[in-house]
Amino acid sequence: MNQLDVLTKEEVFKRIGERIFPYQKNYLAMFSSWYGGIVTDPAFMLIPIDDHMVHRGDGIFEAFKCVDGKIYLLDRHLDRLERSAKAVKLDIPCSRSELIDVVKRTIIAGKEKNCLIRVFVSRGPGGFTTKPSESIGAQLYVVITRLPEYPEDWYSAGVSVKTSSIPMKPSYFAGIKSCNYLPNVLMSAEAEEAGVNYTVAVDEHGNIGEGPTENIGVITADYAFLVPRFDKVLRGTTVTRMMELAQELVKSKVLGYVGEADVRVEDVLRAQEVMMFGTTFDVLPVVFFNGRRIGNGQPGPFFTKFLKMLRQDMKDNPAVTTEVWT
Amino acid sequence: MNQLDVLTKEEVFKRIGERIFPYQKNYLAMFSSWYGGIVTDPAFMLIPIDDHMVHRGDGIFEAFKCVDGKIYLLDRHLDRLERSAKAVKLDIPCSRSELIDVVKRTIIAGKEKNCLIRVFVSRGPGGFTTKPSESIGAQLYVVITRLPEYPEDWYSAGVSVKTSSIPMKPSYFAGIKSCNYLPNVLMSAEAEEAGVNYTVAVDEHGNIGEGPTENIGVITADYAFLVPRFDKVLRGTTVTRMMELAQELVKSKVLGYVGEADVRVEDVLRAQEVMMFGTTFDVLPVVFFNGRRIGNGQPGPFFTKFLKMLRQDMKDNPAVTTEVWT
Repeated sequence: MNQLDVLTKEEVFKRIGERIFPYQKNYLAMFSSWYGGIVTDPAFMLIPIDDHMVHRGDGIFEAFKCVDGKIYLLDRHLDRLERSAKAVKLDIPCSRSELIDVVKRTIIAGKEKNCLIRVFVSRGPGGFTTKPSESIGAQLYVVITRLPEYPEDWYSAGVSVKTSSIPMKPSYFAGIKSCNYLPNVLMSAEAEEAGVNYTVAVDEHGNIGEGPTENIGVITADYAFLVPRFDKVLRGTTVTRMMELAQELVKSKVLGYVGEADVRVEDVLRAQEVMMFGTTFDVLPVVFFNGRRIGNGQPGPFFTKFLKMLRQDMKDNPAVTTEVWT
Repeated sequence: MNQLDVLTKEEVFKRIGERIFPYQKNYLAMFSSWYGGIVTDPAFMLIPIDDHMVHRGDGIFEAFKCVDGKIYLLDRHLDRLERSAKAVKLDIPCSRSELIDVVKRTIIAGKEKNCLIRVFVSRGPGGFTTKPSESIGAQLYVVITRLPEYPEDWYSAGVSVKTSSIPMKPSYFAGIKSCNYLPNVLMSAEAEEAGVNYTVAVDEHGNIGEGPTENIGVITADYAFLVPRFDKVLRGTTVTRMMELAQELVKSKVLGYVGEADVRVEDVLRAQEVMMFGTTFDVLPVVFFNGRRIGNGQPGPFFTKFLKMLRQDMKDNPAVTTEVWT
């Protein structure tokens, strides 16, 4: 690191423009309230370093997707954004309809009908302390990226999961989708090191929680679809929607019950099926948990049903989808 | 928010340059490994939004000060930076001597002999997930600002403190100086709302912890200087140094004992003196705690001694200070 020259702003501009990397091909557009506009050049997707979101994680976010030009579960994601904002006493700097307009216009600038949208509301710039009051005002950043692609065999052959050694967040913070995701980061790193696809947290009573950014759910031997209680984990939009859709299977007596429950490690190991739920991949079958085979070690019939129901829902249910190009 | 145009990079450059605010007069210089250089124009102190420090708080930091051209306790801050890096499995992207060189050169670019230095090591850019592996490499950002000024009467008349309602971080995370400081942010906000100077956390056993970014310590009726155990709070450099310096007072029998202890709210209320310790203000006398007067409600003699010892130490102790302009 011998580049310690003091740069003029023109030199900074030039250097920023030279920071071109292959991964940036996934970055389609960013709205920044700081710029007051949308930028599509990935090198210029920047944020002031004194924004408290940067140095304190003092910001909240949501991630949701647009499939074939339709945003899935937009209102629910914005409901949760508003709950997170309230929990950390952050004022979203625009109305919901303005926010939806920003999201749509940024997606359109990105020119991809299938994309992932991340909305960040930050405390804003103004200093480097922990004090929210030194900020000059909350900022809004909306980042559009390509949808990540998951290997086909994660769906056809299943994924592996193990319990995590990272301590769970206090309940109060588990329910807030903030930029304080270091425990989740360490869970992701732990999964990669252990050679599994995901890890899930376990609380002090032995109940399982959630993955780094995914919910887990089980189908018990007696046909209940159970998910860990939302008082200790983030209320995932995908798993919540799945619980609603699964009511159809209760009506048709394919499932006996759908609900939250204390789910222990041994309940997972005894389950007939185990699944992970998340915005980007929808649902994935878990075939190994803590190195032990779940069921017959193959994706089960409930996984197939669940995936079909979710994909159908985002494709042609106007009640939960929002057209972008209108 | 009607500015939804797609901006060219030249327009972005222009808009960044227009974001001029009075608080930026406190920003003196920033080194960015992303730029490969130092910038002194506050408007261009920016960071890529895909740096995992921004969207996940996946970064670590240290804050220390330069007084009359000498950095105080530099090695200890860098020791702690290395411990934080290890705890979150982050590789600092340069050697310690290179880092010290960057710090000195950035201070010199800022042209102020009294300043505050913040060193951030981030996971780096490369994507928006929680996975550290998607980063293209850790980044280093060093920000130099003016030293904050504290009202003179905080020293002469004392400050007020109350216990916090914000849940404490799990022990594992309390010892890491990361950019996951949302609990600390909420404690700062809580203090402002309650009209006190600081709040301090209390654990589930009723033991007090730390302030948003400060340590607390008490002088008991029997002349012990006690600070809450460092297994639940961050090992503050100022309070740790104070505990070393206070050994002199043990030798001269002015103090009976110096050490870590379980400190309960009632121990604070019964103390003859209570103090807050922090890098920016050194030490402050606490005269009100939970609305009750400490001692006679005036800054006490130990506070006066402690402040003098710390200020002397940073002024002319070559063992703990580092000359910048050499």
